[in-house]
Amino acid sequence: MDKIKVGLCGLGTVGTGVVRVLADHKERIIHKLGCEVEITKILVNDVLKERDVIIDRQWLTDQPDELVKDKDIDVIVEVMGGVDGTKELLEEALKNKKHIVTANKDLMALHGRELLQLARENHCDILFDASIAGGIPIVRTLVDGLASDHIEKVMGIVNGTTNFIMTKMTDEGLPFDDVLKEAQRLGFAEADPTSDVEGLDAARKMTLLANLAFKMEVNLDDVEVKGITKVTQDDINFAHSLGYTIKLIGIAAMHDQKVEVMVEPTLLPKDHPLASVKNEFNAVYVYGDAVGETMFYGPGAGSLPTATAVVSDLMEVIRNIRLGISGNTYQEPQFKRKIKASEEKYSKHFIRLEVEDQAGAFQEITNIFTDHQVSFQKILQLPIETDQKAEIVMITHKISKAQLEKSLQALEKIAVVDRIISYYRVDGEE
Amino acid sequence: MDKIKVGLCGLGTVGTGVVRVLADHKERIIHKLGCEVEITKILVNDVLKERDVIIDRQWLTDQPDELVKDKDIDVIVEVMGGVDGTKELLEEALKNKKHIVTANKDLMALHGRELLQLARENHCDILFDASIAGGIPIVRTLVDGLASDHIEKVMGIVNGTTNFIMTKMTDEGLPFDDVLKEAQRLGFAEADPTSDVEGLDAARKMTLLANLAFKMEVNLDDVEVKGITKVTQDDINFAHSLGYTIKLIGIAAMHDQKVEVMVEPTLLPKDHPLASVKNEFNAVYVYGDAVGETMFYGPGAGSLPTATAVVSDLMEVIRNIRLGISGNTYQEPQFKRKIKASEEKYSKHFIRLEVEDQAGAFQEITNIFTDHQVSFQKILQLPIETDQKAEIVMITHKISKAQLEKSLQALEKIAVVDRIISYYRVDGEE
Repeated sequence: MDKIKVGLCGLGTVGTGVVRVLADHKERIIHKLGCEVEITKILVNDVLKERDVIIDRQWLTDQPDELVKDKDIDVIVEVMGGVDGTKELLEEALKNKKHIVTANKDLMALHGRELLQLARENHCDILFDASIAGGIPIVRTLVDGLASDHIEKVMGIVNGTTNFIMTKMTDEGLPFDDVLKEAQRLGFAEADPTSDVEGLDAARKMTLLANLAFKMEVNLDDVEVKGITKVTQDDINFAHSLGYTIKLIGIAAMHDQKVEVMVEPTLLPKDHPLASVKNEFNAVYVYGDAVGETMFYGPGAGSLPTATAVVSDLMEVIRNIRLGISGNTYQEPQFKRKIKASEEKYSKHFIRLEVEDQAGAFQEITNIFTDHQVSFQKILQLPIETDQKAEIVMITHKISKAQLEKSLQALEKIAVVDRIISYYRVDGEE
Repeated sequence: MDKIKVGLCGLGTVGTGVVRVLADHKERIIHKLGCEVEITKILVNDVLKERDVIIDRQWLTDQPDELVKDKDIDVIVEVMGGVDGTKELLEEALKNKKHIVTANKDLMALHGRELLQLARENHCDILFDASIAGGIPIVRTLVDGLASDHIEKVMGIVNGTTNFIMTKMTDEGLPFDDVLKEAQRLGFAEADPTSDVEGLDAARKMTLLANLAFKMEVNLDDVEVKGITKVTQDDINFAHSLGYTIKLIGIAAMHDQKVEVMVEPTLLPKDHPLASVKNEFNAVYVYGDAVGETMFYGPGAGSLPTATAVVSDLMEVIRNIRLGISGNTYQEPQFKRKIKASEEKYSKHFIRLEVEDQAGAFQEITNIFTDHQVSFQKILQLPIETDQKAEIVMITHKISKAQLEKSLQALEKIAVVDRIISYYRVDGEE
C-alpha cells in the first residue's frame, strides 16, 4: 500500500493533538484515503525535552532543512506559529514541491496571498482551514463547493476574542475594559489585544475570504475596519431596546462585479442566526445563488478542534495527491479589482446624537437628513435627566456610506447637536 | 483522460438542475476530480416530451434496465422520487455494482438501512445527503469526519414543513390549522401533511442519523415521536414569556453506550442557535468530544440547492472510485442496540395544568411532585378569568421520563387538577 510521508513543524498542544488524532484514527484514515499516512520528521526547538505523546525520538530534529529538503516527505504540516521565519520555511517547502497544511492565522492573514501564489506556481496545495475560523470548513466551502461560482455575500464572526467580549458586555452588562481583563485572564485575549479588539485580525481574514469567494484581488487596505473598543453599554442597551444585538461582524459582498469588505461592530436583529453565536464561537454565513443561505458554526479555538481541522486538511491534501489534482484548489484571481466607492456602499445605520433639548432642535436635525435624502425606520427621542439635553436614537433606511458621512458632517456644524455619540451599521434584515 | 459515466433517473426540476449544474461546472469538476463526468442515459416516463434543458435525446429511455444493466455506467443518480419501484431499481443497480446518489427522502427514511447494507455487500457507495436536510452535508459530517468517533448528541430541525408552521404560529400568532393551509398553498406542505406534522418524517431521518452517528442499529420504533398538531398559541406564549421558543426538534443522544432518539415539540432558550432557524430552513447541531459544538444551517428544500447537493455527492462518489475506496463510507453497526429506558431519559420539562382555584390546591400539587422527587426551576400561577380556575405553568429541573409520567398520572387522579393542558421537553440549556 502507498504511504504518504508527513513532516510536522511544531509539537506544542496542536502538534501533539495532530500526532494523537493521526494515531487514534489510523484505520479510518486508511479507509478514507486508500493509503497510510506516516509522520517521519518533527521540527522542534528542543529535541531532548520530555514529550507528552508517544513518538519515535528519531523523528525529532531542530533543523528545518531536514524536513523541507527531505525528498521522501510529501506534505509539511505547520503548527508551530510565528510569522517571519515560518514564512521562509513554508516558501522553501513549496519550492521543494511540498504540499502544506497550516493552522497559522497570523501568517495566512499577513502573507496568505503570496503563499497561495507560490503554491500555484509550484503546483502544490496549501490548505489552511484551521487558521481561519477554528473548526469551520469555510475555505473549503468557498473554493471547493459547486455553489462557489455565485457567492454574493460572506458574513460572519471570525474572531473569537471580540465575540467573547461582546457577549459578556451584552449578557452581563459589564464595560469593555473589565471584560477585556477577564478575557485575558481566561486566555481568550492576548496580553496585547490590539489586533483582535481593533478588528485587524478579522479584517485580514475577511480579505483572504473575499479573495477566495470572489476570485478578485482584494487588499487589506480595501477593508473598512472599526474595532469594538468604543462600544458602550448605552449602545448595547439602545440597540437591544430596538430589537438588535451588536456583534463584531465581517462582511464581504459582491454586487455588479464590485466588492465591498468591512469589519465593524454591527447591529443584527436579535433573531438572526449570527446573533445567537456566543462567547468564543465563530460562525460564517454564506449567501449564494445556488445554495441560498447556509451557515457554519463552530468553536473558534481550542487545541483539539484545531488539530482535527488540521488532520482534515491533511486528508484533503493527500486525496488530491492521489487523484493527481494537487495545486488545483485555488484559482488565479479571475476578476479585476473593483472596490465599491462610498456612494455605492448601501446599508442601514444606527445613529445616536446628543442634542440641545429646545424647541425646533428636532426639526433642524431632520431637515439636514432630508437634505441628504436620508429617511428613517425608527426614531427614539429621550430626555437626558441631568441636563437640558436630549438623546436621539435612529435607525435609517438603506443609505450610502457617502450619504451617512455627509449627513454626520453637516450635523456636527449645527449648534443644537452637541455631539454624535456613536453610529454603527445595521445588517441581517431587509 | 478518464471518463465516469452516469445514468440519471428522473428529469423533473431536480434532474434538470443536475444536468445544468454538471454542464455549468464542467471545467471545475475536471479540475477537482481529474476526470470527466458524462451523463449517458436518462430514465424518464415520456421520451417524447419537450424538455427545458439541453440534452442529447438519444440519452432518454423509459427502460430502467437500460441504465442499471449498462456495463459502461458507473454511477446511478436517482432524483425521480417514489418508494417501491424506485427501491427495486436501486437494489438492481447495486447488484450490478453501480454506485448510487439519491435525493429521495422517503425512500432513504423507509429503506435506508437495507440499501446501505446491500451497498456494503456489493462494495458500492450510496450517498444521500440531498435526502436528509437539503443543502446541509450532515451525513458526510457524521460518517466522514475525524470527529465522528466521539459524537455525543445530534440535535436539529430536519423537517422544513413543520419548522415553517411553527415559525408562522410563533411570529404571526396564527393557529395551527390556518398556518397549515397557508403552507399547503405555498407548497411547503403536502395535501396529506400527516407524515410531516405528526413528526414521522423527522423521526425516520433521526433514526438514520442515529444509526450513522452512533454506529448502532436503531429502529424507528425506538424513537419517541410527538407531532405539532396539538401545539397551541397559549403554549407558545407561555413558553415565550419564560424565555423559550417551541420548535419541532429531533434529538439523538448517546450516553454510557446507550442511545435515546426522539422527535418532539421542544422548548429551546430564545438565544439558542436553533431557535433562530426560521421558516423552511433546516439546521443540525452536532456535539462531540473532538469538535465541541458545531452547527450546519441551510435551505431545507428547493430544486437548485438539492441539485447542487446531489452533484456534490456525485463528485464524492467519483473521488472514491478513483481512490479505490468505494464502499468504505458506512461502517457496519459496531455496537449492540441499547436503548435507554424511561428511567434513564433525563430532561427538563414544561408542564401546564388547569386547576381549581381553591386554598390548598397548589400545595396538593406540589406534594405530588415532591413524592416523585420532581423539583422546579420556574413556576407561574395565574387565575383564569372566566372561571373559578387557575393555570399553573412550570419548568422542571432535569427529571427522568418515568418521573414525569408517574407524576402526571398521579396528578390526573386528584380532584383539584382539572386537566393536564400540555407538556413538552425543554432542551438546549444546562
